[in-house]
Amino acid sequence: MKLYDYPSAPNPRRVRVYLAEKGIEVEKVNVDILTGEHKTPEFLKKNINGQIPVLELDDGTCIAESVSICRYLEALHPQPPLFGATPLEIAHIDMHLRRIELQLFRAIGTSWVNGPVVAKAAPGRFKQIPEAKEQSDAATHAYYRRMDKELAQRSMLAGDSYTAADISAMCMIDFAEQMVGLAPAAELTHLQRWRQEVGARPSAQA
Amino acid sequence: MKLYDYPSAPNPRRVRVYLAEKGIEVEKVNVDILTGEHKTPEFLKKNINGQIPVLELDDGTCIAESVSICRYLEALHPQPPLFGATPLEIAHIDMHLRRIELQLFRAIGTSWVNGPVVAKAAPGRFKQIPEAKEQSDAATHAYYRRMDKELAQRSMLAGDSYTAADISAMCMIDFAEQMVGLAPAAELTHLQRWRQEVGARPSAQA
Repeated sequence: MKLYDYPSAPNPRRVRVYLAEKGIEVEKVNVDILTGEHKTPEFLKKNINGQIPVLELDDGTCIAESVSICRYLEALHPQPPLFGATPLEIAHIDMHLRRIELQLFRAIGTSWVNGPVVAKAAPGRFKQIPEAKEQSDAATHAYYRRMDKELAQRSMLAGDSYTAADISAMCMIDFAEQMVGLAPAAELTHLQRWRQEVGARPSAQA
Repeated sequence: MKLYDYPSAPNPRRVRVYLAEKGIEVEKVNVDILTGEHKTPEFLKKNINGQIPVLELDDGTCIAESVSICRYLEALHPQPPLFGATPLEIAHIDMHLRRIELQLFRAIGTSWVNGPVVAKAAPGRFKQIPEAKEQSDAATHAYYRRMDKELAQRSMLAGDSYTAADISAMCMIDFAEQMVGLAPAAELTHLQRWRQEVGARPSAQA
């Protein structure tokens, strides 16, 4: 089993943090996304989307999508559960993970593709829409404010236990801060408290 | 247990089709989204997003997000599995479901909010961006072409069995055709064959 990876990309980090939390060792193969190694015909056979991470099993079967890779590993190594153990926990963690992905990631992703780093890296390849970025910047900050209210009521995103929803949110907010210029406002003290706690776990360095 | 529902909305339909496939009976309560019943303070307590569907358990606990509701029901009623039974099936179905949601739904959703129905229903409430709609219309058709190639190789989206990925894709493409003016092109014969097959299942009428 090996994981196609790239150190500074946010999605492979979601899998690396998950692996660290579970104590699972997997061989890692760096894919040089700066030179487009993830868009070669050979790599597209592993993942039609041309994205990392990809988990390749020993028989050559490939699983793409960071959360799907984690669900595979969760089915093999259920302890400690990061996607929940009871039907209600499974549903609630999935609900919070979906909100993070469908609302927060979507906004951050729109700001990213319409922002300066992409403009510089791939000039002309994608038609940027400044108005769309304005909307998604505002949506990102609105979502941060909502997270702050929620994290005033519970210690972690999906309750009082650390879960796959926290992993995804941490990786995406770190990326938003470092690469998209979308750091959460300092006055969102509950969100900042949560960021400090999840960032202090040894897995956050993975 | 009751499901907050609305007959013509695509997301509650995902749960209704799932329930029909499983043979599970759940009381349904219609929420009048045309008069904004899903945005009342009372309903926001059930789902902070102000969206349907919501599954309310007998003790008042609420689960929002159509797929999370289905995962809850899957954990209680594993047969027949619609999210996979083995670790690899679970991962592959999730991967295909994610692609449908993160790529196809995202594109259709962007065309919807920037399109004429929303403009007419909620004039001025949302600043529409025609350029964003152009991009997402093109992305939707590109994704349909990709689905057509994939469905030339296998009978259903995630392999040869009908799964939760097929349910979500069917509900969203029907919505795209009926409400967003984004029907798949007639020459995509493999995609049309799949639509006919999934649409002919009794559950599609749910």
